[in-house]
Amino acid sequence: MTLGTLVLLRHGESEWNAKNLFTGWVDVDLTAQGEAEARRGGELLREHGLLPDVVHTSVLRRAIRTSQLALDAADRLWIPVRRSWRLNERHYGALQGKNKKQTLEEYGEEQFMLWRRSYDTPPPPIADGDEFSQADDPRYAALPPELKPRTECLKDVLGRALPYWYDAIVPDLLAGRTVLVAAHGNSLRAIVKHIDGISDEAIAALNIPTGIPLRYDLDPVTLRPVTAGGQYLDPAAAAEAAAAVANQGR
Amino acid sequence: MTLGTLVLLRHGESEWNAKNLFTGWVDVDLTAQGEAEARRGGELLREHGLLPDVVHTSVLRRAIRTSQLALDAADRLWIPVRRSWRLNERHYGALQGKNKKQTLEEYGEEQFMLWRRSYDTPPPPIADGDEFSQADDPRYAALPPELKPRTECLKDVLGRALPYWYDAIVPDLLAGRTVLVAAHGNSLRAIVKHIDGISDEAIAALNIPTGIPLRYDLDPVTLRPVTAGGQYLDPAAAAEAAAAVANQGR
Repeated sequence: MTLGTLVLLRHGESEWNAKNLFTGWVDVDLTAQGEAEARRGGELLREHGLLPDVVHTSVLRRAIRTSQLALDAADRLWIPVRRSWRLNERHYGALQGKNKKQTLEEYGEEQFMLWRRSYDTPPPPIADGDEFSQADDPRYAALPPELKPRTECLKDVLGRALPYWYDAIVPDLLAGRTVLVAAHGNSLRAIVKHIDGISDEAIAALNIPTGIPLRYDLDPVTLRPVTAGGQYLDPAAAAEAAAAVANQGR
Repeated sequence: MTLGTLVLLRHGESEWNAKNLFTGWVDVDLTAQGEAEARRGGELLREHGLLPDVVHTSVLRRAIRTSQLALDAADRLWIPVRRSWRLNERHYGALQGKNKKQTLEEYGEEQFMLWRRSYDTPPPPIADGDEFSQADDPRYAALPPELKPRTECLKDVLGRALPYWYDAIVPDLLAGRTVLVAAHGNSLRAIVKHIDGISDEAIAALNIPTGIPLRYDLDPVTLRPVTAGGQYLDPAAAAEAAAAVANQGR
């Protein structure tokens, strides 16, 4: 049996990346640089002949527009589209809308890194009345309260992303498709943690760069990567960008 | 039972509209004016509180990008997306890529109008080797030969669009959704012919203007319009634009 190919694509720079704010589920747009990153991602797909047969995105516009710009550049706008809140960025709780540098100064290095990188410590929950809450967002209106997060740690993200991985993405791979997943730093880290079998501790050090497609060829029986960590379509740019992400908030 | 609301949106000006060429299934992009029309269509949806819950498009980029720009303007990028070749523009056969004015001069008014507006006379079929044929287009690779047109009249368009109307669009309406269909002059004329019960003769005179959402409220039992012909969200602009379409090729 020939399994399809998995391609992960993290959205490019958003308006709040540029302002160094915690974003989470707040629905900010891409910057002009983020749009250019998305198009470049699509050109890399085309140059490598890695043409998606189906695309999965979160319900956040920065991931959706990244998928649209990349698929436009790859001339694959016409492929089937699936979206789910389960591919959303980590909900950053009460930190949403807060400046990363100010948060670092206010709470100190230890607490800051715990919120940013610990596997199972979520930030404080956001209040429903907070201007950056999604309590009344129409796109989550069909979610029952127990599924609608007010904050999340990476473990929570993995818990809600995994059903989508198994129920929506894996069947596309089993059908032999090239599957593009256009999503976010932490929802993609959760998927990578799962398929690469990365420990709760080691995942803290893993950063996924923006705008560079990450290709995974998976074993058809185990659904584990043939090459651990997959292969970036532009490895030099990926190494450079990953280092920059690690320094965010400094 | 409350039925959902149907909203039809014809894509704005394409590169070949601007050049006065027959387009059909050739996958040309929107012009800057066409992009502006799409955004304005989305603003009209927002201003009227007519926010789509799901969108259906053809597999042609001018309709897909119209839907994306309109939904971006209406802040509904996150809704579920369905695409089908059954919503494509009429296949214009051997006329694809030909200039409308030159075709009019070469073949005369009668033959020209027959090809453009008769219900059941298709243009000559396009050759598979023609530069404007879709014989090798990957988006139709899964279609068996008997479904892949080499030319179409409006009757053919209705024949292939109707299964999609019944199987994909009507179920969304029955679920109470606001359903946006972003498509083409002739695939939308086919749908309108069906729901409004327009005769084979009278449909020739019906033009649907670009970029102006057309709202249909349907009777939940008969699925026929409560108001025949529906309601344009900008009636004055619709009347003006319909007149301009009728003069194409002159």
